[in-house]
Amino acid sequence: MIAVVKMGTPKKQIDNLISWISSQGVMVHLSEGEYQTVLGLIGDTSKIDVDLLEGLEIIDSVKRISEPFKSANRKFHPDDTVVDVGGVKIGGGNFALIAGPCSVETEAQIIEVSRRVKEAGASLLRGGAFKPRTSPYDFQGLKAEGIELLSEAKRETGMPIVTEIMDVNHLPLFENVDMIQVGARNMQNFELLKELGRTKKPILLKRGLANTLKEFLMSAEYIMAGGNEQVVLCERGIRTFETYTRNTLDLSAVPMLHELTHLPVVVDPSHACGIARMVKPLALAAAAVGADGLMIEVHNDPMHALCDGAQSLTPEQFADVSARVKGVLAAVHQ
Amino acid sequence: MIAVVKMGTPKKQIDNLISWISSQGVMVHLSEGEYQTVLGLIGDTSKIDVDLLEGLEIIDSVKRISEPFKSANRKFHPDDTVVDVGGVKIGGGNFALIAGPCSVETEAQIIEVSRRVKEAGASLLRGGAFKPRTSPYDFQGLKAEGIELLSEAKRETGMPIVTEIMDVNHLPLFENVDMIQVGARNMQNFELLKELGRTKKPILLKRGLANTLKEFLMSAEYIMAGGNEQVVLCERGIRTFETYTRNTLDLSAVPMLHELTHLPVVVDPSHACGIARMVKPLALAAAAVGADGLMIEVHNDPMHALCDGAQSLTPEQFADVSARVKGVLAAVHQ
Amino acid sequence: MIAVVKMGTPKKQIDNLISWISSQGVMVHLSEGEYQTVLGLIGDTSKIDVDLLEGLEIIDSVKRISEPFKSANRKFHPDDTVVDVGGVKIGGGNFALIAGPCSVETEAQIIEVSRRVKEAGASLLRGGAFKPRTSPYDFQGLKAEGIELLSEAKRETGMPIVTEIMDVNHLPLFENVDMIQVGARNMQNFELLKELGRTKKPILLKRGLANTLKEFLMSAEYIMAGGNEQVVLCERGIRTFETYTRNTLDLSAVPMLHELTHLPVVVDPSHACGIARMVKPLALAAAAVGADGLMIEVHNDPMHALCDGAQSLTPEQFADVSARVKGVLAAVHQ
Amino acid sequence: MIAVVKMGTPKKQIDNLISWISSQGVMVHLSEGEYQTVLGLIGDTSKIDVDLLEGLEIIDSVKRISEPFKSANRKFHPDDTVVDVGGVKIGGGNFALIAGPCSVETEAQIIEVSRRVKEAGASLLRGGAFKPRTSPYDFQGLKAEGIELLSEAKRETGMPIVTEIMDVNHLPLFENVDMIQVGARNMQNFELLKELGRTKKPILLKRGLANTLKEFLMSAEYIMAGGNEQVVLCERGIRTFETYTRNTLDLSAVPMLHELTHLPVVVDPSHACGIARMVKPLALAAAAVGADGLMIEVHNDPMHALCDGAQSLTPEQFADVSARVKGVLAAVHQ
Repeated sequence: MIAVVKMGTPKKQIDNLISWISSQGVMVHLSEGEYQTVLGLIGDTSKIDVDLLEGLEIIDSVKRISEPFKSANRKFHPDDTVVDVGGVKIGGGNFALIAGPCSVETEAQIIEVSRRVKEAGASLLRGGAFKPRTSPYDFQGLKAEGIELLSEAKRETGMPIVTEIMDVNHLPLFENVDMIQVGARNMQNFELLKELGRTKKPILLKRGLANTLKEFLMSAEYIMAGGNEQVVLCERGIRTFETYTRNTLDLSAVPMLHELTHLPVVVDPSHACGIARMVKPLALAAAAVGADGLMIEVHNDPMHALCDGAQSLTPEQFADVSARVKGVLAAVHQ
Repeated sequence: MIAVVKMGTPKKQIDNLISWISSQGVMVHLSEGEYQTVLGLIGDTSKIDVDLLEGLEIIDSVKRISEPFKSANRKFHPDDTVVDVGGVKIGGGNFALIAGPCSVETEAQIIEVSRRVKEAGASLLRGGAFKPRTSPYDFQGLKAEGIELLSEAKRETGMPIVTEIMDVNHLPLFENVDMIQVGARNMQNFELLKELGRTKKPILLKRGLANTLKEFLMSAEYIMAGGNEQVVLCERGIRTFETYTRNTLDLSAVPMLHELTHLPVVVDPSHACGIARMVKPLALAAAAVGADGLMIEVHNDPMHALCDGAQSLTPEQFADVSARVKGVLAAVHQ
Repeated sequence: MIAVVKMGTPKKQIDNLISWISSQGVMVHLSEGEYQTVLGLIGDTSKIDVDLLEGLEIIDSVKRISEPFKSANRKFHPDDTVVDVGGVKIGGGNFALIAGPCSVETEAQIIEVSRRVKEAGASLLRGGAFKPRTSPYDFQGLKAEGIELLSEAKRETGMPIVTEIMDVNHLPLFENVDMIQVGARNMQNFELLKELGRTKKPILLKRGLANTLKEFLMSAEYIMAGGNEQVVLCERGIRTFETYTRNTLDLSAVPMLHELTHLPVVVDPSHACGIARMVKPLALAAAAVGADGLMIEVHNDPMHALCDGAQSLTPEQFADVSARVKGVLAAVHQ
Repeated sequence: MIAVVKMGTPKKQIDNLISWISSQGVMVHLSEGEYQTVLGLIGDTSKIDVDLLEGLEIIDSVKRISEPFKSANRKFHPDDTVVDVGGVKIGGGNFALIAGPCSVETEAQIIEVSRRVKEAGASLLRGGAFKPRTSPYDFQGLKAEGIELLSEAKRETGMPIVTEIMDVNHLPLFENVDMIQVGARNMQNFELLKELGRTKKPILLKRGLANTLKEFLMSAEYIMAGGNEQVVLCERGIRTFETYTRNTLDLSAVPMLHELTHLPVVVDPSHACGIARMVKPLALAAAAVGADGLMIEVHNDPMHALCDGAQSLTPEQFADVSARVKGVLAAVHQ
């Protein structure tokens, strides 16, 4: 860690600071220049509170040199992590197609969709049972009954299931769930992350709407620090000033995350019930940019079909995307 | 609600859509122009899922005309809400100074600070017991013991106390707490908000780092929909591209929130352990812009004092800010 | 255009507003509801100043229904525009590779690079002569001499050339330039755009760092309104909160722009001298998402080579990207 | 400047880099740690291109320690700059009220408004002659005639005048203008800034909509590097995700700029034709936070008055704001 001291700081104050830092068991290397004095902090600087240091009157700025994430850091774990979700592998060259409806609605719906997406090449079934909604007056999901219906679909088709958790107290309901999703709005719900770190379930962690990659990795670190290293990262679009699209899919996050971490990275081009006609080009781009998988919304219900198109893909459209994605993957890796 | 239909949409599809909307109990008023067709949805449109409508192939855009928040909306409740926190009033002309340390550390610290801030004009004592930290390796607060120490300070000084909750399961520990704070990162932790809606405690709801005022009010609505109308909103800085300041205090939010809602609005110029030397000008500006209160970090511990200044104010600096704030309030309201 | 009137507005004021709008030659359709009154403005609403209308005390919000861009709008020009740059076509199925160094430095450099990129499949040569730099103390480019050297390279290799303009007064120097680039920071330099609208040269318009797609298209409209319809749009990354990457390439802009406009869209994955090792995955993703071309920085100079890699690609790396891009395009369009 | 070398970089490459940096006349101090090697660059590092350095394969990150702005930097010029605009002082304790209409429309209008704002305490007259508009179809201002009318008002009332320039070629028209404004969208129009640096006129430089304070100061530096040190900075709102307000006024920029630079800082609470009813609270807050002046839109025309309120203040409202601002300034500085 490097701390730049403000010009004109009395020597006595600098000495006080150095002896305080040293008392925390961290060595300090002092280098004095004409316009500034720089302190190099050497050793286990994780004990040093950057916010506190930066807030001191005499400090101009502080820069962490080593990343604050350890378990998720590729520097210390060069090989790709492969996450196993009920026999389906993600990462390290294994590409996974996760598909299913936005919300679980009825038994007929979820079983029909799971059959269709499996035929079209999906390996994992997704479906929302607990739904995070901006408004308390909007439909909040079928909850426990939704998970029951997903389990039914799993028994029918053999596909492992992925669904979102919103409260640690619901954890007992997730026993039969193969992969637990943490939604974008809960990415920094640290108590939930800690609890998931104590489970043995693979976790699908979605990036927050306005979070940096470092914050994203620190949230993965919360889960891993508890002993659960089965974490898959999911880019699902960030908030920008653009209004034509709901969010902006950040595909540059994929190669950057691959540099920073050994964890698999999947992409959700449907981004929180987005625009169906943009799912295909964004799915192809995600495959081309190096994602380890895709998470795509697929529906089969008449209400959506009514107006000939909606926010999710039909099973037919999904089959087309699935086939094209294979072509792009082959062109990229040939 | 107004929905604009895409140019060239076949009449049959528009008719299908209209009959589907009508079947939800909402009237549709159709107006056809040369370049577009506009549907006016009249009645209780809260049943209509805007995301679903917007996602339809044939829809160009959708605009909600009435605000999605009801209980928090000033249109339906023109008078200012006054929140009573253990006898201290906030809102409707009552200005509250909330002060105390970032983290509760020791009994001596919290009692000393509470005495000093009370003398200087503070009416409520704040202090962190559960601390949300980006890194799992950072200090997470004294937790239950921290709340115990706050209660001790309350007994000594008679000041009502405010502290943050991070998990619904901790609620039993908050029995003696007068006002429960929801932190910025939990602003959309909907399960937590619902549970707090079932309590009778005043809630201090902080705005998320990248959330709009509408989302902020929808989170207040989650609490109010449960029956708890004692909500105070807190602007604490938003994320922008600026790097010299940690966050950007959005003071224009104060008059805008006063237009939109009857709930009190306080401002936290220390913004999550920010820069001490900027607290005073921002506190004065918050008073001038019409805030119903301020939440300010004050410390007295030697570690901070060591380098002559840190992220929190000293009791002496706080007393100066408190006096100046009074002057500004008088100048504004005279 | 739709204007929502605030609840409780006296009828007289609404009548005054309607007669004022009518006096501008725009018809008003009034619809009154329980909670709000909505005015539908019909006719040539381009005469109405949205900012003015929105600023009125009695107006709640205003929504433009028809897009404010006309010449660039796909609704009125359904067919793809094909821009011809010295015989090289862009758009309408024609994919263009634009390559060359960040800055033109010497005759040897630019001729060597242009030969190498032509061999590898590039059809247009780029190179910076006038360089927009954040600091007045940084190198500002070779200016007129740089354009001279580009022309020399064009004579040698036959490749049409693209270079950036920063001041309308430099226009006479661009006579031999085939395509004039407008940089991101000048996207809303309206006087420059107007002047370029009076030329007959193809324009490569880069998206501003924090501009929406609507603003981007309005800037294209400035050029087209002057009579020059040869505009190619270039997505080059937007500003987000992320700090690991300089900017965030917005690939979802490509399919969205293709919906909104008939103009060709190219992507610059090197984004203003970015990170070389991310150029390849982002270039492949841009091809997969449907871009009409790529603009890539390529260097050959020893200073860059010194440390085995730098922000631009080497000619060898560019040749690899070029070959892979062909593979992806084939997989997408087969 | 500090450059962190990537872990595992061969010694030979580090040596190559050091000798290249040394050849630029900058000394390198090498410090090797267990996990990383850090290079300290000492001397005139303004010659080093941070972008180039950061782009090198072997470099992890680069941090500039000294600010890239020199002339604008308070470190080298501790005393406040006082800018004199036709006898009216701004900065160093001199508070200036700049007022006038958004656009100059007629002689009667500008003379009437200038008389009224002068009576109410304004010391400088503003008015738009050249108007930057997002759409080429919107009114672009009276141009030369507008400047003529402003000059007329100046002759009548004796108030110095401020108006915006959009093109260096218009400079001859500004001979009688006392202070030249650079708009937010031209903040990084570097050719314009350079040309203004060669004039002797005071410049009012507005902050770009999505620009950092460092970029803002670098743009001031462009003007000052040319020899013109009469620069006043103007905060006018930045782009955020909020939609209820057009932009978000960043009042924390004022104390931060006062730390970083000796140049005066004024605030424009009307932010590019904003919401009239928010001008007063934001003006008071700007005075409280330490601004050196305010720039406020005032109108007197019947078209605005028609609907009883609009985006600008009436002369009466302005007089009220002016009086209250005096009260707040007294309370803050007493």
